[in-house]
Amino acid sequence: MQQVYFDNAATTQIRDEVIDAMTRVMKANYGNPSSSHSFGRSSKALIEKSRKAVAHYLNVSASEIIFTSGGTEADNLILLSAVRDLKVTHIITSKIEHHAVLHTIDQLVKDYKIAVSYVDLKPNGNIDYLHLETLLKNESKTLVSLMHINNEIGNVLDLKRVATLCKVNNALFHSDTVQSVGHFKMDLQDVQVDFITAAAHKFHGPKGIGFVFVRKNSALKPLIFGGEQERGLRAGTESVHNIVGLETALKSAYDNLDNEVAYIKDLKQYFINKIETELANATFNGKSGNMEKSTYTLVNVCLPIAPQKAAMLLFQLDLKGIACSKGSACQSGSNQNSHVLAEILTAEALQKPSIRFSFSFYNTKEEVDYVVDVLKAFID
Amino acid sequence: MQQVYFDNAATTQIRDEVIDAMTRVMKANYGNPSSSHSFGRSSKALIEKSRKAVAHYLNVSASEIIFTSGGTEADNLILLSAVRDLKVTHIITSKIEHHAVLHTIDQLVKDYKIAVSYVDLKPNGNIDYLHLETLLKNESKTLVSLMHINNEIGNVLDLKRVATLCKVNNALFHSDTVQSVGHFKMDLQDVQVDFITAAAHKFHGPKGIGFVFVRKNSALKPLIFGGEQERGLRAGTESVHNIVGLETALKSAYDNLDNEVAYIKDLKQYFINKIETELANATFNGKSGNMEKSTYTLVNVCLPIAPQKAAMLLFQLDLKGIACSKGSACQSGSNQNSHVLAEILTAEALQKPSIRFSFSFYNTKEEVDYVVDVLKAFID
Repeated sequence: MQQVYFDNAATTQIRDEVIDAMTRVMKANYGNPSSSHSFGRSSKALIEKSRKAVAHYLNVSASEIIFTSGGTEADNLILLSAVRDLKVTHIITSKIEHHAVLHTIDQLVKDYKIAVSYVDLKPNGNIDYLHLETLLKNESKTLVSLMHINNEIGNVLDLKRVATLCKVNNALFHSDTVQSVGHFKMDLQDVQVDFITAAAHKFHGPKGIGFVFVRKNSALKPLIFGGEQERGLRAGTESVHNIVGLETALKSAYDNLDNEVAYIKDLKQYFINKIETELANATFNGKSGNMEKSTYTLVNVCLPIAPQKAAMLLFQLDLKGIACSKGSACQSGSNQNSHVLAEILTAEALQKPSIRFSFSFYNTKEEVDYVVDVLKAFID
Repeated sequence: MQQVYFDNAATTQIRDEVIDAMTRVMKANYGNPSSSHSFGRSSKALIEKSRKAVAHYLNVSASEIIFTSGGTEADNLILLSAVRDLKVTHIITSKIEHHAVLHTIDQLVKDYKIAVSYVDLKPNGNIDYLHLETLLKNESKTLVSLMHINNEIGNVLDLKRVATLCKVNNALFHSDTVQSVGHFKMDLQDVQVDFITAAAHKFHGPKGIGFVFVRKNSALKPLIFGGEQERGLRAGTESVHNIVGLETALKSAYDNLDNEVAYIKDLKQYFINKIETELANATFNGKSGNMEKSTYTLVNVCLPIAPQKAAMLLFQLDLKGIACSKGSACQSGSNQNSHVLAEILTAEALQKPSIRFSFSFYNTKEEVDYVVDVLKAFID
């Protein structure tokens, strides 16, 4: 049976060169990076080389990159330490952040005396920048946590604008950039964000490894205590093969960025055209139907299907070998609707099924044809 | 040059079959385990199969195994949640625990109102069980955290005795079993410990993956918040290849346990005999020279070398291709002495260098001969 993987925002196929690099490391470099002997030093050297490479692509110092077990841990580290150690008492975020941010903040509200403000959203899923500005006008020590690219609807935050607003108002700025690192060029000298987070498995690297960028002199402290790994900011023996996998994946992503972006953009445009031509009354959620104002990696389509039939849609797509998603992967096992769409869609639109299709350079136009054909047959 | 890896308590060489299994998973199973489509389900199935295998070897339920990024995160999870969620106000531990336990407790003392008691140690490094019993006689909600096998001196805690003491006194019992899982048979129906922790890289598996056993109905809550992975106890996309690597390594460890234990025991006995014959005045720290009362995996030797010359010892061993350790790997880059030896040795013994040699089935008697020859030449 044909298999089509259109769920690249959930996770991506690992590149061959990444697997090769990881396998080589696992065979040849098993020393503990904290050991001072030659076995340890060669592992340590691999990690520091990876750290430099990551820093290079973001235009930051190697000392500002801390490896974590993934994006979720990275978000937890920033949010917890901002409150516990940097004495943040006010967090500004939005209701369409990833649960790694929202649920962590919920816990912080229980454990610490902090206030949380949610910035208003427009019906298109963009934040209301004027409202953000208003929220920033207060005396509390404030952290803003807003994701760069929304993982469900693909809306793009104006990182630089928010960073500047935060600077002017003495607020710290954390951005979950899990959907953009490896997909967009980033220059963190130009964009003065304080903290960003990333996960290798979103850019064709391994699962279980990510990093946080922590701007110099931020006084952050660990989420996980123990040994002095990662400059004292993250205890635990480093996952050397995973770190090298992350580096290799990031290098491949940025070395091939222009070509791959052009390829995937073309594919998304083709998908949009096809949907518009073949499926009357289908609409695009958020900005995802707008090639200029959303990420090139995904669309989120609201399909003209009655609720009774809609319940069978994902099941049918799965039977046809098509992998896509209702919301983020973290919710897809549950019957809950997407918390993101619940915030921005009308009650009427929420009655209809919405599906996220997310692309990579492994996908083809033939796959798009197949998927749209299956959708059409289901709707008719 | 000859290379001898005698630092297996710091980390171990990954078995070939583990690397093969991980490589296969990375190539074939890239779905996000939280995704409901076929790609996701096949990853989820791999994780659940691994969980069942781990549970089988410990004689517990699969639902009691939670995968983490390693032993350090696992220890942090237990200690934090015991205090924050289980309302523990008193922790009993010892001053020779791993820093993943000691530094986490230090942080908890800052963040919560808890008291910490350190159980007395005997000069041989064993805990004073009578003192532990005395400490347990109080009204506070208490957690005991004592490691099974000390990573520096190899002393073995009587897990069952401590578990029983804790039960009788209504205390919870956490044991860092990072040095014993995969090295000793464990039956957690027989030993009523509440929480244990493990790291795959200590038993010839990959770095960056471990697990915690959490006895049913313990009401533990996460250290890392976000998605509902790991039955809601550990958010973040699972490192599927690392989990399969852990499973494969644990299976190999237990399937070959009798043969490998016999082989390594013989090697340790040979090392002890050789040291006793060739190096007059060398002594063994803790119980590590006692084949019955310490783990078969390591010795910790105090060498008759003057302080000035001692400073050069590790450097010389490294030059000769010998990997071993002064304390735990986490400290080996620093000039600090081992916090474990500082607790149990006399001031005179602390003047002399102590070295931990830790073994695996990859080591040979020829390597022992070589190492003792190098030590002898250095001392003479």
